[in-house]
Amino acid sequence: MAVVTEGTITDLAVQRWSTAHSPRQAELMTALVRHLHAYAREVGLTEEEWAAAVEWLTATGRVSDDKRQEFILASDVLGLSMLVVQLNHRFAADATPATVLGPFHIDGSPAAPFGHDMSDGVAGTPLFVTGRVLDLDGTPLPDVVLDVWQADADGTYEAQLPQTDEARLRAKYRTRADGTYCVRTIAPRGYAIPMDGPVGDLIRTTDISYYRPAHIHFLIDHPGHEKLITHLFRQGSEFLDSDVVFGTKGELIVPFAEEPAGASPDGGTLDEPYLHAEFDFVLQPGAADGERS
Amino acid sequence: MAVVTEGTITDLAVQRWSTAHSPRQAELMTALVRHLHAYAREVGLTEEEWAAAVEWLTATGRVSDDKRQEFILASDVLGLSMLVVQLNHRFAADATPATVLGPFHIDGSPAAPFGHDMSDGVAGTPLFVTGRVLDLDGTPLPDVVLDVWQADADGTYEAQLPQTDEARLRAKYRTRADGTYCVRTIAPRGYAIPMDGPVGDLIRTTDISYYRPAHIHFLIDHPGHEKLITHLFRQGSEFLDSDVVFGTKGELIVPFAEEPAGASPDGGTLDEPYLHAEFDFVLQPGAADGERS
Repeated sequence: MAVVTEGTITDLAVQRWSTAHSPRQAELMTALVRHLHAYAREVGLTEEEWAAAVEWLTATGRVSDDKRQEFILASDVLGLSMLVVQLNHRFAADATPATVLGPFHIDGSPAAPFGHDMSDGVAGTPLFVTGRVLDLDGTPLPDVVLDVWQADADGTYEAQLPQTDEARLRAKYRTRADGTYCVRTIAPRGYAIPMDGPVGDLIRTTDISYYRPAHIHFLIDHPGHEKLITHLFRQGSEFLDSDVVFGTKGELIVPFAEEPAGASPDGGTLDEPYLHAEFDFVLQPGAADGERS
Repeated sequence: MAVVTEGTITDLAVQRWSTAHSPRQAELMTALVRHLHAYAREVGLTEEEWAAAVEWLTATGRVSDDKRQEFILASDVLGLSMLVVQLNHRFAADATPATVLGPFHIDGSPAAPFGHDMSDGVAGTPLFVTGRVLDLDGTPLPDVVLDVWQADADGTYEAQLPQTDEARLRAKYRTRADGTYCVRTIAPRGYAIPMDGPVGDLIRTTDISYYRPAHIHFLIDHPGHEKLITHLFRQGSEFLDSDVVFGTKGELIVPFAEEPAGASPDGGTLDEPYLHAEFDFVLQPGAADGERS
């Protein structure tokens, strides 16, 4: 080994990690070494700051578990998650844009029929979300599964609660033959990200707003199309222009129309006023098997 | 907020983190955002790779505790720890160079007299390390504390064992009026870093040697001088040219002379052969209170 000095150490470390057996791993690791070292050199990282970073990373790992993923939250608030979404989903201008998955998705939500109320038993203003799922050329797509989840009126997701047998504010809907879908739920509200961990500690050193605007999550993974992970945001809600995870896009902001009691979009009637959002999801053509993201 | 796109997100994130209340925190965080984003863009980070990184970071945090610091190990094997040492300890050419602290230092080791055997009860070849602590101009320095620690013949540090009342292979020596010190211990051996965690998993994707050459740690924090954290390495030992943490420096490699039973460097006699290493530590002039690193 050549003598290790401030001038040689980066090249030596790059050389060493370039022995990774997979070329992609070698690319990922040598670039990581270069960027980490460039960061330390640029800021003149002190040993105290380095030690504080080690402590912060450790605390972030230790607070994470099945119910909480503090590293995803860190990636979100640094804009990294949204950047990775952008890099991997360069959709056509007319396709519905992607946004962050967030840490609260639960696999295996139950299948729900057209108009099913996924908010059953959870307090809130009734909301219908209706529309179609379309191909980029406007063709309605039947039998498309929409995996939908959201927080309750307190900003709490099922994933943050003790495990239960019943799905709470999440379900998988399916488009009908004419490409239409109908979700019944409650109006989401803006909420603060968890501020009681290392990410909260970091944000409190700044003036950054730690709220997300009101939104509902959608995941649509349909054969022959790029997987779409996105949100719908409520038009006029707070924090649209300061979303702490950089997830808001203009195309995803929809009005929640106030409707009187009476006929409802699921084909039934409601004896109280409700909200109604309409949105057509437009899928980007892509991988044939729905596996590629 | 401006529209979030692949082109704007880095500037938006930099702008947001520039609101940190302390200018240094703003510098550290905005540079972190820039470098993280530049890394993701350069390698075209996929969502699967991002998720794998989140999982790796979480596992690294969760395996760390009072006895084990896997993030320090990660920083070590990426060359970051040694780079930070270099950036913060630009000593004169004649001063003893610094190297990594490592994760196994324990505060508050007991004071030990000249020649004290810090290996008491631990099997190994007897070793004396003797020499002086000098100012840069060659003046011997009295009353300098040398905080010394090392692994046993199996490569295990006290910090990796269940807590005990007695210090094991660590002690604080003090130079005499003429600047001399005498440590009695056992010969250290090269050892593998812990390979049963996420850092080991990463290293096994490469051909990187995961051993450290035989060494003893020294920490000398003397008023009026820069704190010196360093090692002495045994000349001729394995792994000197492939030290997994990039910690080896030519100036720190010393011969361990083989001596017959008889008079020993502590002024006594030994009834078995022993090894003897001689080294003069030369301190960099610096901070008056010994607090600066």
